[in-house]
Amino acid sequence: MMKVALIGLGSVGKGVAGVISRKDLGITITGIADSKSGCVDPDGLDIANLLLNKSRNGCCGDRQVTAADVIKKADYDALIEVTPTNALSGEPAIGYIKTALLRKKHVVTSNKGPIALAYKELHTLAQKNGVALRYEATVAGAVPIMHTLEYGLAGNEILALYGVLNGTCNYILTRMADEGLTYEQALMEAREMGYAEADPTYDVQGIDAAIKLVILADALRLADDEGCTIRLIAEAIPRKHILRVSPRILEKNHPLVVDGTLNALTLETDLAKEITLIGKGAGSTETASAIIGDLLFIRDRYARRT
Amino acid sequence: MMKVALIGLGSVGKGVAGVISRKDLGITITGIADSKSGCVDPDGLDIANLLLNKSRNGCCGDRQVTAADVIKKADYDALIEVTPTNALSGEPAIGYIKTALLRKKHVVTSNKGPIALAYKELHTLAQKNGVALRYEATVAGAVPIMHTLEYGLAGNEILALYGVLNGTCNYILTRMADEGLTYEQALMEAREMGYAEADPTYDVQGIDAAIKLVILADALRLADDEGCTIRLIAEAIPRKHILRVSPRILEKNHPLVVDGTLNALTLETDLAKEITLIGKGAGSTETASAIIGDLLFIRDRYARRT
Repeated sequence: MMKVALIGLGSVGKGVAGVISRKDLGITITGIADSKSGCVDPDGLDIANLLLNKSRNGCCGDRQVTAADVIKKADYDALIEVTPTNALSGEPAIGYIKTALLRKKHVVTSNKGPIALAYKELHTLAQKNGVALRYEATVAGAVPIMHTLEYGLAGNEILALYGVLNGTCNYILTRMADEGLTYEQALMEAREMGYAEADPTYDVQGIDAAIKLVILADALRLADDEGCTIRLIAEAIPRKHILRVSPRILEKNHPLVVDGTLNALTLETDLAKEITLIGKGAGSTETASAIIGDLLFIRDRYARRT
Repeated sequence: MMKVALIGLGSVGKGVAGVISRKDLGITITGIADSKSGCVDPDGLDIANLLLNKSRNGCCGDRQVTAADVIKKADYDALIEVTPTNALSGEPAIGYIKTALLRKKHVVTSNKGPIALAYKELHTLAQKNGVALRYEATVAGAVPIMHTLEYGLAGNEILALYGVLNGTCNYILTRMADEGLTYEQALMEAREMGYAEADPTYDVQGIDAAIKLVILADALRLADDEGCTIRLIAEAIPRKHILRVSPRILEKNHPLVVDGTLNALTLETDLAKEITLIGKGAGSTETASAIIGDLLFIRDRYARRT
């Protein structure tokens, strides 16, 4: 049995807890914490009961116990860190992850902050301690891009990478084009559907994308007349040191013209040539899929060493 | 340095040899054989020279040395088995693979015969001997479907899987629909481009697909009028025990309507929902990409055990 500590009980955390308790994956949760409380049990916690507590009282456990306590003291093999992203400081997640790595615990995260801001330091720390740091869920939700880059296309040089990586933005664009909604209407709808954060000002990339969308409102109608449409395309060309996110006019049958909250990514490589992956970029269970995949990968990989 | 023996020097074998000699992957070829000759060198063979020999004399090495000799006697960590598929008996590839597994050597193959006909036996033999048997290249060429199923989507139940998996057939359909070619013209073109075997009677699935295509010729024009097109769709629905390959009418903007020799596959899962992968289904370098991916995976995985 693999023991895990789960930090964060928002949409992603609930998804992960639900999957672990529903499926017979050989994983047990021995520590859990939300922003207000925590609890530990080396024999495994009763997840269904904790989730019920959370929905009734707004907290899952004991208000005397913090996330930091759980990370420092619980008995676990891997930490699942799924607290909200802080894109400016990366905290408190960076501190949480460091603590676990120093305890020689594997870490799986869906949190973009620590990976974007402190990847090198965290990766080095994981290596020094002989454990894994995995973050499939940070990019494109359920789509296994990291696995594909790391293993499926091992030996390939990545010449370019471009795609639709912001599901919220893509949902808004789709609704504007298909239903003729204004940007404000589409954004409100996205919020109601739970695709956009209640406070998007906190999501730096969201603001960026949103500004572009406002500018795009007219261009979208124009593109439609030409049998084209507009997508916000993220692009990386390593050899040319190009990294950019920009709106592009694409023909409607282009593989990257995906609808709604879908994400799509094309990898251009020297051997495999073009590989395109399409799937759900967000969602509680979908993101849990990426986290569970990372956990099972760690178990399979590291069990063989012993 | 990882030592490999390469058996088969057709299109795929040449692709693999080329990539290993061009790229600094830490892989060295210590044994090689084609259908007429073989040679071994525990310090690593001069691949450029062997490929030159092959193109000049039609054989790569010593005519006294057979593929079986190389597999039995060479000093290697992994066997790369890329001989032509025999869909009826699976031989001589099954015998080659067994010999290597019994010697506790990992095996990587692009050969559909042994995997389709003797997977269970070979898998058990590999497990008993503590080595890996990997076959990413047998399905959809460069598209890392096996990795995605095994690791990227670990923890997911596969509810259904459907896609375009025969690149030759898809090329013929595309040419018939786009250029109004007859089936015979399109097949001849596919042969000229090297996409169809010179003798397609040997490829059981090819015959099946071809017969269906002839029947489809008129339906294709009919579908076109409706804004649709036809694709040969392979489909598996595990829970219903459904396994079938059949022509389907799809809207032209359906994600599985890919052109030319592309393959496309949609996985329907319980957690990640729908994941679609698109890429080159055939080609020398593209198939080599899948084989190299498997080799590097084995090296990474098994090096950690020692």
